[in-house]
Amino acid sequence: MNVEMEIICVGNELLIGKTLNTNALWMAKRATSLGVVVKRITVVSDDVNEIATVITETIKRKPRFITTTGGLGPTFDDKTLEGIAKALKCKLEVNERALKMVKEKYEIYANQGKIERVEMTPPRVKMATLPEQAQPMSNPVGTAPGVIINIKNTTLIAVPGVPSEMEAIFEESIVPLLKKEAGNVTFFETSIFADNIMESVLAPLIDQTMHDNAYAYIKSHPKGEEDTPHIELHFSTTAKDSKTGKNRLGNAIIQLTELIEKKGGKIRLQKKKK
Amino acid sequence: MNVEMEIICVGNELLIGKTLNTNALWMAKRATSLGVVVKRITVVSDDVNEIATVITETIKRKPRFITTTGGLGPTFDDKTLEGIAKALKCKLEVNERALKMVKEKYEIYANQGKIERVEMTPPRVKMATLPEQAQPMSNPVGTAPGVIINIKNTTLIAVPGVPSEMEAIFEESIVPLLKKEAGNVTFFETSIFADNIMESVLAPLIDQTMHDNAYAYIKSHPKGEEDTPHIELHFSTTAKDSKTGKNRLGNAIIQLTELIEKKGGKIRLQKKKK
Repeated sequence: MNVEMEIICVGNELLIGKTLNTNALWMAKRATSLGVVVKRITVVSDDVNEIATVITETIKRKPRFITTTGGLGPTFDDKTLEGIAKALKCKLEVNERALKMVKEKYEIYANQGKIERVEMTPPRVKMATLPEQAQPMSNPVGTAPGVIINIKNTTLIAVPGVPSEMEAIFEESIVPLLKKEAGNVTFFETSIFADNIMESVLAPLIDQTMHDNAYAYIKSHPKGEEDTPHIELHFSTTAKDSKTGKNRLGNAIIQLTELIEKKGGKIRLQKKKK
Repeated sequence: MNVEMEIICVGNELLIGKTLNTNALWMAKRATSLGVVVKRITVVSDDVNEIATVITETIKRKPRFITTTGGLGPTFDDKTLEGIAKALKCKLEVNERALKMVKEKYEIYANQGKIERVEMTPPRVKMATLPEQAQPMSNPVGTAPGVIINIKNTTLIAVPGVPSEMEAIFEESIVPLLKKEAGNVTFFETSIFADNIMESVLAPLIDQTMHDNAYAYIKSHPKGEEDTPHIELHFSTTAKDSKTGKNRLGNAIIQLTELIEKKGGKIRLQKKKK
């Protein structure tokens, strides 16, 4: 059975079109590479009620994992943990382990002479104030800890929105959890490119190839226009071993290539340069 | 009152981390520039039930506009219209106006000698098969028409996922609708950069500035680490005229700059080069 994940990205900057959502891309790609199926990505604003609503809705769909990015920092608009607490109808409280993690970071900064003394001001304590049943996850490169909460059969994980921090916590603490659940499977993918064949002509050929090759998924991505067609054909599958994965894709590629060439199309192994 | 929009992006390529969601960025930025508030962006797979579920959920939140991108083409996995029909519990039927639009495109390709004759094959008719109460919107640069459906007080608009087609339909057919609803407002934004001040020290200064400057929204984006801080401060507001918008941001910038400099921070007008 598929191990499913949903990703929730918190941040006004994503909704006003200021920031490209590279975090969602990175996280989706990394989870997919481990055989996890990302079912949905949702972007919401830095608003407690919006965050609480999307968390509540997502929990109801019962994915095995929910990861949120953004909103864990010290400023007033870092509201992810408040939103999670609201959704779970639980209190926020200072978590002693989290407080120790945050304090240790400022002690390092003080030892390095970057700050004068370690003062646990309200914005700093805020980063250690978690929903009551949550546990902190160490942040190898930044200050705000990640947060993990088990809710029945769903594991909810919150990581910061700063890409280097998100990636470091994901690799250190989340990847092992995903591997344990998804087992030893890998996602295989490759692309070829078709010229001189319209997507509307290609459509039934893809249908036929997918029908004959169970488990190989093929998706066409038009890169030119319908009248000057240059179409990426993306093949993917999830398999327990490399031989199975590569055989599946290889067989599908051979069949589709033959069908396309019969219709006068040309296959390239790389994207046409503009 | 705010004119609200939700964006739904359909495509497995976004969920496996193959494709960066530049469509969501472009659409969110363009809508925001017109004073529309983008409340949520949701990414789902090329699956009829997933699409139908997210459409149903989104309609319940009653945004003024819902725009979907992707899934309007001729292939088997272009399922957005089927998903919309399922959500609205209505039939799909060949729309005569849409059929005419699609046919005219192929007639042009035939006249240009790009295809031998105009044959309305099932994949081509599929692009003109719409939910029964829908109307097509002309696609200035591609083949598949956009689709518009009014559902009580919500306007649902579906556009293709090919960026050039999405942008062209948005500019030609959607921008006028948004302008009509949002009126003559504009979104103003600008950024400054703060060095030598940690985000945890900055937090209460932003609080105070936002408290004193109603309507100016300020968000901090750490670009370095907490111990070597380089923080973008993004100021934004929506206003009816340029003078009001710029004054609001100017006043907020002056106040926050003074507060930061008192704490030993330095302000730059541009991002520090790495």
